[in-house]
Amino acid sequence: MKKNQSRQAIGVFDSGLGGLTVVKEIMKVLPYEDIVYFGDTARVPYGTKSREAITHFSQQNAQVLLKFRVKMIVVACNSCSSYALEKLKKNFSVPIVGVILPGVKKALAKTKNRKIGVIATKATIHSEAYTKQINKLNPAVNVTAQACPLFVPLAEEGWFQHRETFLIAQKYLRAIIKSKSDTLILGCTHYPLLKNVLKRVVGEKVCLIDSAREVAWEVKELLTKIKALRHPARRPRYQFLISDEPQQFQKLAKRFLGREIESVKKIEV
Amino acid sequence: MKKNQSRQAIGVFDSGLGGLTVVKEIMKVLPYEDIVYFGDTARVPYGTKSREAITHFSQQNAQVLLKFRVKMIVVACNSCSSYALEKLKKNFSVPIVGVILPGVKKALAKTKNRKIGVIATKATIHSEAYTKQINKLNPAVNVTAQACPLFVPLAEEGWFQHRETFLIAQKYLRAIIKSKSDTLILGCTHYPLLKNVLKRVVGEKVCLIDSAREVAWEVKELLTKIKALRHPARRPRYQFLISDEPQQFQKLAKRFLGREIESVKKIEV
Repeated sequence: MKKNQSRQAIGVFDSGLGGLTVVKEIMKVLPYEDIVYFGDTARVPYGTKSREAITHFSQQNAQVLLKFRVKMIVVACNSCSSYALEKLKKNFSVPIVGVILPGVKKALAKTKNRKIGVIATKATIHSEAYTKQINKLNPAVNVTAQACPLFVPLAEEGWFQHRETFLIAQKYLRAIIKSKSDTLILGCTHYPLLKNVLKRVVGEKVCLIDSAREVAWEVKELLTKIKALRHPARRPRYQFLISDEPQQFQKLAKRFLGREIESVKKIEV
Repeated sequence: MKKNQSRQAIGVFDSGLGGLTVVKEIMKVLPYEDIVYFGDTARVPYGTKSREAITHFSQQNAQVLLKFRVKMIVVACNSCSSYALEKLKKNFSVPIVGVILPGVKKALAKTKNRKIGVIATKATIHSEAYTKQINKLNPAVNVTAQACPLFVPLAEEGWFQHRETFLIAQKYLRAIIKSKSDTLILGCTHYPLLKNVLKRVVGEKVCLIDSAREVAWEVKELLTKIKALRHPARRPRYQFLISDEPQQFQKLAKRFLGREIESVKKIEV
């Protein structure tokens, strides 16, 4: 690791806004690190698209971040982490962290009856990334996975407490409730916004796993290990880049990041 | 018009699948014409994106079709027709037909109380393309416009008759029902799939306007006028191009086109 690397920013990319939930946690866990975020808002969503498209877009997004000389890349999108992580690791030399493994580790630590539910986009469920990762670490765990394509548009509509969202969640989660899973992985960065409804549907006893916090700790662990942590006690710099116009992004971003975004720059992929 | 032009295909583009409803009608009204369809499935949907992105994508899509030497272009996407039609007409020399005007003409012919409702994507509603076009032709008509962002994902989920779709439609259409509009423009090519639910929500007396058929007649009129109709009594050739992998497209396309698609080709935009 080169000496100056610690001063470089952490790169984070996502298909759109959702990855800001991960940025929010990195800001808390690593308050002195610079962050460059790229959201591919012109081509969002990814979760309905093919493995090939998601892999291709992921590589382009990583290249965008590398132009900013980031010291590592966080793939804050579940669909990208499911389909493209291995390819990214092979093609780029900076360390790359996805969101699947941290969420799986936490779920395995939480489950008592060894029954885990996973909800995510079509792409993530179709990839079986969560099921494979869980069973790789513990083959005895029973996994029930369910694609919930309407959750992203519902979250973007801001229908967090609506009766319609509750009814749709009841429909999607039927098999998971039937499976008696005691742990539910929210396998899409939008889903934490629907936490209240999801809790009402699956019941208070089921533990909801939102991997954003775990990803942030994984990033800290990695940077500590490779001695690339930024020296403390300075004000960090945050850059937000997107591929579509900023208006809509700035309006919605606060929901995900929990604070105002001052400036967003549009760039071509 | 060059002599050979009549032998060239009609080009149709859309952000994804929805434009196939227009292709279906063109096939009926002009059964001897070749058609080249391009659906930008890698970047779908457009209706949540900015004017700039939609205009940029529309121009790229038109260029894709022009490589196939099409004699005209049908912009089968409401969001593109709303934001990009004028720019396309300025930048390209082939005749270009959008979906707004044909739908508006039909709605104006149908309304008796001069109250028209419009439902569409965020982009289309935000552009005010329908309201402006209606009032340009008849300033006395009262227009109530409503964005319905969940309708496209609901249609793509295949939830055509679901209670959840009904409840969401009730919520979205509240202002339009209150306005006592006797005519409702379905300003997005996906919405005809939800026709049954929409009819139940607004009541049988409200006339639903699906512009696909009108667009097909507009195309016929135009080709007749410029003497570019294909000579009859031959089997037409249909080409389907998309920007993502074909699997998902072929599965869903039947719903929109009403027939199987034999071959789909993926191309880079």
